[in-house]
Amino acid sequence: MKKIGIVDTTFARYDMAKSAIDEIKKTGTGFKIVRCTVPGIKDLPVAAKKLFEFEKCDIVMAFGMPGKEPVDKTCAHESSLGLIQVQLLTNKHIIEVFVHEDEAKNDKELVFLADRRSREHAVNCYNMIFKPAVLIKNAGKGLRQGFEDVGALKEE
Amino acid sequence: MKKIGIVDTTFARYDMAKSAIDEIKKTGTGFKIVRCTVPGIKDLPVAAKKLFEFEKCDIVMAFGMPGKEPVDKTCAHESSLGLIQVQLLTNKHIIEVFVHEDEAKNDKELVFLADRRSREHAVNCYNMIFKPAVLIKNAGKGLRQGFEDVGALKEE
Amino acid sequence: MKKIGIVDTTFARYDMAKSAIDEIKKTGTGFKIVRCTVPGIKDLPVAAKKLFEFEKCDIVMAFGMPGKEPVDKTCAHESSLGLIQVQLLTNKHIIEVFVHEDEAKNDKELVFLADRRSREHAVNCYNMIFKPAVLIKNAGKGLRQGFEDVGALKEE
Amino acid sequence: MKKIGIVDTTFARYDMAKSAIDEIKKTGTGFKIVRCTVPGIKDLPVAAKKLFEFEKCDIVMAFGMPGKEPVDKTCAHESSLGLIQVQLLTNKHIIEVFVHEDEAKNDKELVFLADRRSREHAVNCYNMIFKPAVLIKNAGKGLRQGFEDVGALKEE
Amino acid sequence: MKKIGIVDTTFARYDMAKSAIDEIKKTGTGFKIVRCTVPGIKDLPVAAKKLFEFEKCDIVMAFGMPGKEPVDKTCAHESSLGLIQVQLLTNKHIIEVFVHEDEAKNDKELVFLADRRSREHAVNCYNMIFKPAVLIKNAGKGLRQGFEDVGALKEE
Repeated sequence: MKKIGIVDTTFARYDMAKSAIDEIKKTGTGFKIVRCTVPGIKDLPVAAKKLFEFEKCDIVMAFGMPGKEPVDKTCAHESSLGLIQVQLLTNKHIIEVFVHEDEAKNDKELVFLADRRSREHAVNCYNMIFKPAVLIKNAGKGLRQGFEDVGALKEE
Repeated sequence: MKKIGIVDTTFARYDMAKSAIDEIKKTGTGFKIVRCTVPGIKDLPVAAKKLFEFEKCDIVMAFGMPGKEPVDKTCAHESSLGLIQVQLLTNKHIIEVFVHEDEAKNDKELVFLADRRSREHAVNCYNMIFKPAVLIKNAGKGLRQGFEDVGALKEE
Repeated sequence: MKKIGIVDTTFARYDMAKSAIDEIKKTGTGFKIVRCTVPGIKDLPVAAKKLFEFEKCDIVMAFGMPGKEPVDKTCAHESSLGLIQVQLLTNKHIIEVFVHEDEAKNDKELVFLADRRSREHAVNCYNMIFKPAVLIKNAGKGLRQGFEDVGALKEE
Repeated sequence: MKKIGIVDTTFARYDMAKSAIDEIKKTGTGFKIVRCTVPGIKDLPVAAKKLFEFEKCDIVMAFGMPGKEPVDKTCAHESSLGLIQVQLLTNKHIIEVFVHEDEAKNDKELVFLADRRSREHAVNCYNMIFKPAVLIKNAGKGLRQGFEDVGALKEE
Repeated sequence: MKKIGIVDTTFARYDMAKSAIDEIKKTGTGFKIVRCTVPGIKDLPVAAKKLFEFEKCDIVMAFGMPGKEPVDKTCAHESSLGLIQVQLLTNKHIIEVFVHEDEAKNDKELVFLADRRSREHAVNCYNMIFKPAVLIKNAGKGLRQGFEDVGALKEE
């Protein structure tokens, strides 16, 4: 039985974790889910580390929705650096699922993007622990989570 | 009995720690507070670490008020990276409460913002150690500390 | 028998690892290759670390293809910092092979660049473990991987 | 008997350490001073660490004077990150005293600033090891080192 | 007998290590030199660490020549952060000798700058291990490596 950690924020404007949990349960079995929520994006790294060390998670998904201001971009950057450090300290993967508010042109698209990116990364998460060969098969294919895949470059 | 650490600066222009201490005492019981003050925002990380390691704090609130200049933004960024590192080294949360001078349009608003953000994060701090389920309930709700909550995205 | 690790992404739009594996096999013998693939560029660092620690690789090649947006540049930066940390934690080299989408003026050139940089770095990788003296001989020669070498400065 | 470490650079254009040593000796007693000098600002972190580990210093003051160019700002940023890391590795404070050349409008003002900031931080340094309560009393007072204090915000 | 490590790149367009080795041999005796070369500037940190840990070097000089593009600046920044980390992990100094291509107005000046900076830092390197008091004597003197010293600020 594998254990998947989920950590998200009260700052985000969409419950991405809910989408991801829904999708991952549709994708397969053989895992339990542990969830915690923190105020903001910079609180994610230690929360993820605790999920690995105290809850013995095998992988963690970390959800955040940075705003449009420069300070929001800086916070996301700091959080990402922290999430990478956690991975190096634990030898476990964290699937970072950040949706920037300015990636979408309106609220409706933002909802679409947040939901779909969460679901597609939930499948990545599942494959990373149960079917890593699926990822190798897709190496260099230009996959994207949320909007359409851009695809592999045409070779001629 | 839990122990809450408070660290702030002589650089800040408002005693945010005082607001937070007042609010957290109104919010609940079952904790002691330990406070220390450092000159500037970059002195916060090691001060927070010492509160965890020498004072055995369970959580720390770190207060700072970066100025408007690029160098102030850089200092805040460096401090935030240090605060994240401290969390990873101690497996404890630090609630970072930074109020940027240019977030407010005048001194009066800055006072309002500094006071209210400190109080709202004091409640977050309390919930993180005593009532973590409150945070999960608010996941993805677009909460903000200081100004109004932006709220969750409308789903259609 | 040496062991060369290969890690790449499903985000990249060209299978650079394939080019590198092809080239390194033409360059010499005495090594085995282990490959894994992750979703994005920020997933590379821990994947590389696991190749060193669990697969006992002697060197790793890490492939990524950052997009044109500022957020892509930030992701590449974060990944590079992580890759450096992995090297310091393991005392092993990682050959980072990143091709930025905006380095090429069209898709055709991007394919050329991705293929050739991967191949030239595959030779670097081989030399670093088997023939380090070749690198010393080329010190300060203005070598580039992908586009033409710029060459050493004329001394008068 | 406490031990105060001093580290500065040959790059700086003013002997800030001299000002600080003069001031700290006027401020109190009960300490010894150990000094070392390095070429540039990026050499400060390990020099500070060695003062803690080999000289058993209780606190270190680190002096630097970054130039006006972007590369100088980057060097200062890298040094600051290193100085924070040293603090976290040693659980000791480093008082960073950086004076940016472009903070002053001419050389005369730069001399004034470098001297006064060094002296005011020397007092901070003294208080941090001997009188930490003085800092708590000044929390949120808008203190600055060098130019005039901006002071606390008026509350109404 | 001290041991001085030298690490440089095939990316650089001038053999700065050669200049430094020539100069350091003119400066004094009592040391051995160990050299290694890597492809690019981001490969320097772990190479330096290996020189300390496997070759038992007492100090390392790290040479790089970043190009003019933003991506080159980012690489140099990442490398510098790594070099600082290596110093903190080993308690040894690394003299970073980076010459940015855009520091010089043409190739001829770039050759001059690369040669002279390498030589002047070679002397710094020698002094740091054999004559540290020389550095203290020059504290705050506005020394530069390569172009002319800017000198200390006039005090009146």
